[in-house]
Amino acid sequence: MTALSFAEELRRRQQLVEEHLPAFLPDPETFPPVIHQAMHYALFNGGKRLRPLLLLEAARVAGGDAEQVMPFACAVEMIHSYSLVHDDLPAMDDDDYRRGKPTCHRVFGEANAILAGDALLTQAFAVMTSSALQGRLDPRRALRAMVEIATAAGSTGMIGGQVIDLASEGQHPALEQLQAMHRMKTGALFVACLRSGAILAGAAAAVVDAFTAYGDALGLCFQITDDILDIEGDATVIGKPVGSDLKHDKATYPALVGLEQARAMARDCSRTAVASLQGFGPEADFLRGLASYVLERVN
Amino acid sequence: MTALSFAEELRRRQQLVEEHLPAFLPDPETFPPVIHQAMHYALFNGGKRLRPLLLLEAARVAGGDAEQVMPFACAVEMIHSYSLVHDDLPAMDDDDYRRGKPTCHRVFGEANAILAGDALLTQAFAVMTSSALQGRLDPRRALRAMVEIATAAGSTGMIGGQVIDLASEGQHPALEQLQAMHRMKTGALFVACLRSGAILAGAAAAVVDAFTAYGDALGLCFQITDDILDIEGDATVIGKPVGSDLKHDKATYPALVGLEQARAMARDCSRTAVASLQGFGPEADFLRGLASYVLERVN
Repeated sequence: MTALSFAEELRRRQQLVEEHLPAFLPDPETFPPVIHQAMHYALFNGGKRLRPLLLLEAARVAGGDAEQVMPFACAVEMIHSYSLVHDDLPAMDDDDYRRGKPTCHRVFGEANAILAGDALLTQAFAVMTSSALQGRLDPRRALRAMVEIATAAGSTGMIGGQVIDLASEGQHPALEQLQAMHRMKTGALFVACLRSGAILAGAAAAVVDAFTAYGDALGLCFQITDDILDIEGDATVIGKPVGSDLKHDKATYPALVGLEQARAMARDCSRTAVASLQGFGPEADFLRGLASYVLERVN
Repeated sequence: MTALSFAEELRRRQQLVEEHLPAFLPDPETFPPVIHQAMHYALFNGGKRLRPLLLLEAARVAGGDAEQVMPFACAVEMIHSYSLVHDDLPAMDDDDYRRGKPTCHRVFGEANAILAGDALLTQAFAVMTSSALQGRLDPRRALRAMVEIATAAGSTGMIGGQVIDLASEGQHPALEQLQAMHRMKTGALFVACLRSGAILAGAAAAVVDAFTAYGDALGLCFQITDDILDIEGDATVIGKPVGSDLKHDKATYPALVGLEQARAMARDCSRTAVASLQGFGPEADFLRGLASYVLERVN
């Protein structure tokens, strides 16, 4: 897959997710409108839709049907969106902008932002559960995928990672601790997307294992490049002020090992991700392309 | 069932829920400990365990096995607990005490309280999903029950009710609007507990319908008595200062129709709840007892 055809394919798939998402949320006019408007605002925010793409692609590579797993793909994006809304709150990172727009609580107030996050998380499970009942997905596979996603999003996964991240502001953790935190905060949901896509498609354990290794490496790569972008990215492209990690005195890869070494680590992680897919043929080229995209992204 | 034997039976069942709950939560020492301690603090707070009791009893009356549906019963209590943690936050009701103890955010800080709420909600779905995979529950019934619970807890149910409640502070809604708000904020989850218990037990539609009517009436009765207790309850028994509705300028039944009329409405709702069970024999006596208990409760 050439870089150009990857970029086209990426945009096509992002568009597909974008088109499907609204059907899984109540209309913004649904009573009471303010919560549904806040949910829409948080979900349709110019996100890269990376997590749903991983879930859809894992299912497709494992021989499944992307259309069938679309409700799960949209549900993981809702979980990701809720986590951003809550992370941005004054009591957490206290961020005013995300992707160039005022954060949810700046527009709808703090109470509505907390509740919109709660509602997106709840809706994610409603969507997955409903889709499993509609007969196009095997109920047991759907339940297994939901366990993966719920565990990854929970107190020993994404939420636990955020707890550690907040607690480590002003601290200076070792590299291992930083990686452990990122594996929980970002990596766990990446891995869950890949695993649950594969599980929904009925993949063999070896396939699920390979995707797990890929997701773990991709998640670390994503986090390192995130830290690098926070230092040298273009604020107008990222959509928030650069240097926010410094403001919060957050531990980052560049701060711990220097910018050059951080870049080298990101490249290593990207290579590890690609190497995890060595058992696959050209059908995994899009996943390989994603490993380069995450390394080279500018936002 | 005499009042005395009902009270004993109520305590026995509350105890049963209390004993089962810890198994569905990571230990408080699980890494990172602060989030798991906050989750435990929020969940083991002297609650009446009314929602799990409703779910267990609906399943039992419908011919199911209470032990089998225990994970669902514990999950709805987690959802209820998370909603209390978030409702108490400074950005919402800003309450310092709940059931005689400092609120979660007062003990663990605002960020950890938000995250502990998120984690309890996530864990509730992890528990329901895992239990459905363990083979003792029919997967399709489990999925149907989860749809009921997720919908009731979501933006058109409990969360929507909280949004309206916050928006109506200082407003003076009509009685119908107040009831509509309470049906969302409290009633929807009551009804979902009864419906999902019945669904898990494989109940016929007529049974589910009867329980729906019972839950709706019980939920309104509960909310009216809640408002009355906020005026004339004993602060040491309720565990929070009385008069907090007045402080927040919240619309209440006594404020709208007067204390005597509110008492009469609560009695009517309790009678309606009992009348909804006319198709059942003595097997529904505990549910009938609950309708009196909710009417006459002192906390």
